[in-house]
Amino acid sequence: MTTISIIGAGSVVFTGRLIVDLCLTKSLHNSTVILMDINRERLNIMYELAIRYSRETEANLVIKKTMDRREALEGSEFVVNTVKVGGYEPMEEERRIAEKYGYYRGVGERVSDYYGGIGAYHQLKFFLELATDMEKYCPDAWLIQAANPVFEGVTLIHRMSKIKVVGVCHGHLGYKDVVRRLGLNEENVRVTIAGFNHNVWLKDFLYKGENAYPILDEWIEKKAVDYWNSEEYLKSLPWECEQMSPAAVETYRLYGLFPIGDTVRSASLWWFHKDLESKKKWFGPTGGFDSEIGWTLYLNFLKENLEKLYYLASNPELKLTEFYPPTFSGEQHIPLIDAIKNDNQTLLQLNIPNNGIISGIPDNVVVEVPALVDSSGVKGVHVGAMPKRIMLFNMIPRMLKMEQILQAFIEGDRTSLILMVAEDPRTLSFDNAKALIEEQLSQSWNMEALKHYK
Amino acid sequence: MTTISIIGAGSVVFTGRLIVDLCLTKSLHNSTVILMDINRERLNIMYELAIRYSRETEANLVIKKTMDRREALEGSEFVVNTVKVGGYEPMEEERRIAEKYGYYRGVGERVSDYYGGIGAYHQLKFFLELATDMEKYCPDAWLIQAANPVFEGVTLIHRMSKIKVVGVCHGHLGYKDVVRRLGLNEENVRVTIAGFNHNVWLKDFLYKGENAYPILDEWIEKKAVDYWNSEEYLKSLPWECEQMSPAAVETYRLYGLFPIGDTVRSASLWWFHKDLESKKKWFGPTGGFDSEIGWTLYLNFLKENLEKLYYLASNPELKLTEFYPPTFSGEQHIPLIDAIKNDNQTLLQLNIPNNGIISGIPDNVVVEVPALVDSSGVKGVHVGAMPKRIMLFNMIPRMLKMEQILQAFIEGDRTSLILMVAEDPRTLSFDNAKALIEEQLSQSWNMEALKHYK
Repeated sequence: MTTISIIGAGSVVFTGRLIVDLCLTKSLHNSTVILMDINRERLNIMYELAIRYSRETEANLVIKKTMDRREALEGSEFVVNTVKVGGYEPMEEERRIAEKYGYYRGVGERVSDYYGGIGAYHQLKFFLELATDMEKYCPDAWLIQAANPVFEGVTLIHRMSKIKVVGVCHGHLGYKDVVRRLGLNEENVRVTIAGFNHNVWLKDFLYKGENAYPILDEWIEKKAVDYWNSEEYLKSLPWECEQMSPAAVETYRLYGLFPIGDTVRSASLWWFHKDLESKKKWFGPTGGFDSEIGWTLYLNFLKENLEKLYYLASNPELKLTEFYPPTFSGEQHIPLIDAIKNDNQTLLQLNIPNNGIISGIPDNVVVEVPALVDSSGVKGVHVGAMPKRIMLFNMIPRMLKMEQILQAFIEGDRTSLILMVAEDPRTLSFDNAKALIEEQLSQSWNMEALKHYK
Repeated sequence: MTTISIIGAGSVVFTGRLIVDLCLTKSLHNSTVILMDINRERLNIMYELAIRYSRETEANLVIKKTMDRREALEGSEFVVNTVKVGGYEPMEEERRIAEKYGYYRGVGERVSDYYGGIGAYHQLKFFLELATDMEKYCPDAWLIQAANPVFEGVTLIHRMSKIKVVGVCHGHLGYKDVVRRLGLNEENVRVTIAGFNHNVWLKDFLYKGENAYPILDEWIEKKAVDYWNSEEYLKSLPWECEQMSPAAVETYRLYGLFPIGDTVRSASLWWFHKDLESKKKWFGPTGGFDSEIGWTLYLNFLKENLEKLYYLASNPELKLTEFYPPTFSGEQHIPLIDAIKNDNQTLLQLNIPNNGIISGIPDNVVVEVPALVDSSGVKGVHVGAMPKRIMLFNMIPRMLKMEQILQAFIEGDRTSLILMVAEDPRTLSFDNAKALIEEQLSQSWNMEALKHYK
């Protein structure tokens, strides 16, 4: 029995997965789950559905709801943060502004989606507010950070707050697509995946105790092209084919380790992202998850899910488990809580301060690495040195971007925001970059950011 | 009395300055100077002139010459390295190849001039050979590294060799141009200049003990534009006007500290360097030191100096001190030697391993900082934290470039060479970058490099 609050519980897909996982975890039955959101309608729906799901699965969860953050935090032992401040629309509008200035699909990291708009301002500010509230209302609780940007966010919270924080993502599961595509039995596979969130690499890849990279090399040499011409590939959705796309293979060829999950997109080379044609060439038929096609598919997926939940909510006679069968989602939040609360020791892939885990990365930078979790806490498993080329051409530049974003945020430094844009290879001139930042900052939802970044 | 060898003594301007400085330094009179070069003609000229200069100034130097490196090193207490392997022509040809591929004035750092061609291969290889020879023939001698790239070179030697090495440059003297332009009395000025070679910043700037940045700000606000429109500016040579050019002011505005010396060019923003028109706008009437105009002026300056020396050499009745008056050059090599050899303690601006001098820079990275020198050795003066924006947007990216160059060199990694080019904002495609590297590597003088970078 524990108390878990979910901040931003209106994130329908995500909260649904947590509830299913919780109901499947016997050692957490009878727990209290506090759903918190500022969107009353969404909150009510998730509340109704969670109660029904718990009842159907006999998990006996105590489900509560609140629109008040303080109320949610008081007494919580675990706080899951899944908030996307302002939703997606402002970010989409900022993207449209950037495209007007010549930045196809927006500026900065290739996954600007994750940043929640300019300088990641709204997200980072919220993260710090939440951590501050936790220090007041539940100082011993764990903050389980699911909201993006995980890399910047968890590093910031770690540096600025005393709260125990750990970042959780599911991107590393992409290795299963590799294993499946190579026709290997997952049970005989051992991997070490390491890096930063959305920038993780298949460092060790063993099959029956032997290095399995040669199996991957052979697939690339003999089967990759056939796969990329197959009907399966040509009809696949972005999240079905990116992991074994030409982008992944080329990134591996240039850096020396295979990129895992979102890394294929967000740590790959700028020329993969020049235009839709390039994106299609490198990421598959839809141009990948963050092309205009892929992203629209994702937003539609979210919308359909929401409609499905509304439908289920308004038809209380339907059995939820028939629509959402009780199988583990693969998300790590509930296993993490179970391990800490009930000493069910387990190995997870987590975002934690480096403290020597990856060589050559400062201690106070958050890395995504294997970690052993039990009642004594979260302990990173030593990774050691990554190949130098990956470090120098990919990981350290990515780390530098994180530091730039945090510096701009902490010092309220508009010049830094402009310099970040100016470094984009598509930048035509400094004045153009400056005008873009000024226009984004002048949007109605950015009034506070406009004041903040001087 | 000490023994100093100058490796690459055919560098006429440079060697001449050292001889003049030596003859002016009484405590080093009677020293032995071994001139070494593989160019017999140049070596002979410098030998004749050095003997005459010493005689005219009654410095009583013992001048020797040799084309054999081992002979030069044996018994040396100080070894000054001023070698530019292969001279400038191969570099110029590599630049022409790069321009064909769309890279105006060549690729990589804005000062590709300094790198001696692709991956700085020839220079770095020579530096290590020299250090290895010193370990054998004069293991206790100091290596005074004047040859570029000083940043990459001294860092490499420090990491790979046990030889005592220190990098010396004169770029920091640019601060005197600032002082002069502001109309300040140099004697009342105190500065701390810190960073990496060709990437140094005016960290402390005091006039009569008070912060002098406001004086600089006032000059920028009230007088800069007049200066840039003045006949003096519009007729000036690149090395006369860069220090107070619009590029310097804009770099200061964007990064927060004033750039000193070559930094104005080599640590400034990419859009200053787009084409000759941009260069003229930012660096003055000739487009700066490394534009086609500025660089031709510099090569002509070298040529004229060489002709002058040939003329003086073939007219032994002429008095050299009339053509090269005995005044200190401002170069630091001889003061450095004097301080170590004769315990004449002095404060110099030197390139040495960081070891905590600048916060946030690894210990084994060579920084350019104030250093106290005497018989007990070279000791960096603590600098502390640089402003975060300079670190994150300029110094750390520059440090990363150094590490990339060294990684490519040490691992013989051609992919890294290509990735370095690919990151240039002017790169059209990866294949274009690759073709450029392949073509540069296929030049006759690069046959060894072609084998090295696999």
